[in-house]
Amino acid sequence: MTKTLQPLLTIPQLHDFLAREFPQVKDDFEVTEIAPMRLILNLSPGERHLRPGGTVSGPTMFSLADCAVYLAIIAHVGEEALAVTTNASIDFMRKPDAGRDLRAYVSLLKVGRGLAVGDVSIKSDGSEAVVARATLTYSRPRS
Amino acid sequence: MTKTLQPLLTIPQLHDFLAREFPQVKDDFEVTEIAPMRLILNLSPGERHLRPGGTVSGPTMFSLADCAVYLAIIAHVGEEALAVTTNASIDFMRKPDAGRDLRAYVSLLKVGRGLAVGDVSIKSDGSEAVVARATLTYSRPRS
Amino acid sequence: MTKTLQPLLTIPQLHDFLAREFPQVKDDFEVTEIAPMRLILNLSPGERHLRPGGTVSGPTMFSLADCAVYLAIIAHVGEEALAVTTNASIDFMRKPDAGRDLRAYVSLLKVGRGLAVGDVSIKSDGSEAVVARATLTYSRPRS
Amino acid sequence: MTKTLQPLLTIPQLHDFLAREFPQVKDDFEVTEIAPMRLILNLSPGERHLRPGGTVSGPTMFSLADCAVYLAIIAHVGEEALAVTTNASIDFMRKPDAGRDLRAYVSLLKVGRGLAVGDVSIKSDGSEAVVARATLTYSRPRS
Repeated sequence: MTKTLQPLLTIPQLHDFLAREFPQVKDDFEVTEIAPMRLILNLSPGERHLRPGGTVSGPTMFSLADCAVYLAIIAHVGEEALAVTTNASIDFMRKPDAGRDLRAYVSLLKVGRGLAVGDVSIKSDGSEAVVARATLTYSRPRS
Repeated sequence: MTKTLQPLLTIPQLHDFLAREFPQVKDDFEVTEIAPMRLILNLSPGERHLRPGGTVSGPTMFSLADCAVYLAIIAHVGEEALAVTTNASIDFMRKPDAGRDLRAYVSLLKVGRGLAVGDVSIKSDGSEAVVARATLTYSRPRS
Repeated sequence: MTKTLQPLLTIPQLHDFLAREFPQVKDDFEVTEIAPMRLILNLSPGERHLRPGGTVSGPTMFSLADCAVYLAIIAHVGEEALAVTTNASIDFMRKPDAGRDLRAYVSLLKVGRGLAVGDVSIKSDGSEAVVARATLTYSRPRS
Repeated sequence: MTKTLQPLLTIPQLHDFLAREFPQVKDDFEVTEIAPMRLILNLSPGERHLRPGGTVSGPTMFSLADCAVYLAIIAHVGEEALAVTTNASIDFMRKPDAGRDLRAYVSLLKVGRGLAVGDVSIKSDGSEAVVARATLTYSRPRS
């Protein structure tokens, strides 16, 4: 259970899944990289993701983190449309750079039979400073 | 700092603030009650809040919780457009009832000079079961 | 799964369980009340629970919260020595009153077949101010 | 505020600080490495850190994580005995290996004037699997 899993799905397969399961965000989010136990999800912020002043809103970053970990799990175990988020904790450290894409770097910490846990760092494209960091837990359906 | 504060703003004043600061959600969220250290925020889910299958999405519940605590703080300290969320943890316990409004019940645990902390329970309208529970911390601007 | 469960164990049975499973803390912690979906656990702080200056340490409050929710679950489902904590989030709001017992008030939010979730508020004995608030999730062994 | 800070204190200075501020754990914890924005804290588990069965208890891991981030902050900003933990979230992923030391790897994500945030991964000595992961926030005293 602790071992490093290899991805089972390709980026185009993940984009198909995203379009079906998260139709509201399919045009904003793009998987840019998959590797064993890792995935990167990119957000190109649109008007509706911004707070007055032009910064990306907290709920948008939550949505990015949630979707990124979900896709990372799916990429490694195959499609499980019924997996549900059971817990999330997120720390917002600093404002993202205005006018830049946000990138969510996922690292899967556990893919167990019952629970899967992923860690995400969100950074502005081109910067090393962590804008937000989250850990999310998903409960997997029992077969 | 621990003492019970009285609300300074009325529901119409909070709705004005919501319309200015959170224009994307102003038509979905409605403050239905304010009391000392407490506030209730109602969400009438629309198509864009739903996951396939008709259940309200996690990010929508996060957005409801975040906005509810923010409004509760503003209601008790006056308008502080610069307060920012620094930390949130949320547990999703069960699916909300389909076709029902969601209600976020906020209890402010601390309104200090530096940090404010609020607790939220989200329930389906008409039900006592807790759908999700969150705690959020906001950093207040220093005068 | 959402329904209110009745306690199955008595306070003396819980103290027996505590002595076996948590021998290090059995003399510090005392269950003072059990009710449907609720439990109160009392801590009489000793020298080793204090930080310099006389305040109860954060890890001691974590230990109190963790043990309190665990005992609340056991009280409602029977002895399950293998249940494990999978997630905890805790907010520390203010210092406890020096020289007072701490009381952890547990409310069980969910007792599902896979996961159980409890909410705890820690207060100084005789005070209404919340010193710390935590939510803990336990994974139950599968039969 | 985002910039990488250099450590100001040496390992012996941190051990002196530990002995004064955390006398209960000074013989169990040892700083083994300090680097810019990073620190490693080692725990040699004793009888009182174990649950029946021989595994290190959750509160012990919380204590290790809390102390590790605290020491990392002190190492980079100098002694601030009044900094307090305001929030912690911790995920327990798997059991530590029996009879092994535990190592807490801290990465400081933010050292601001008001808040400092650190990330910790706890692993069994000699293993790459993450046993527990935590994020902790400290409020710094205002000068």
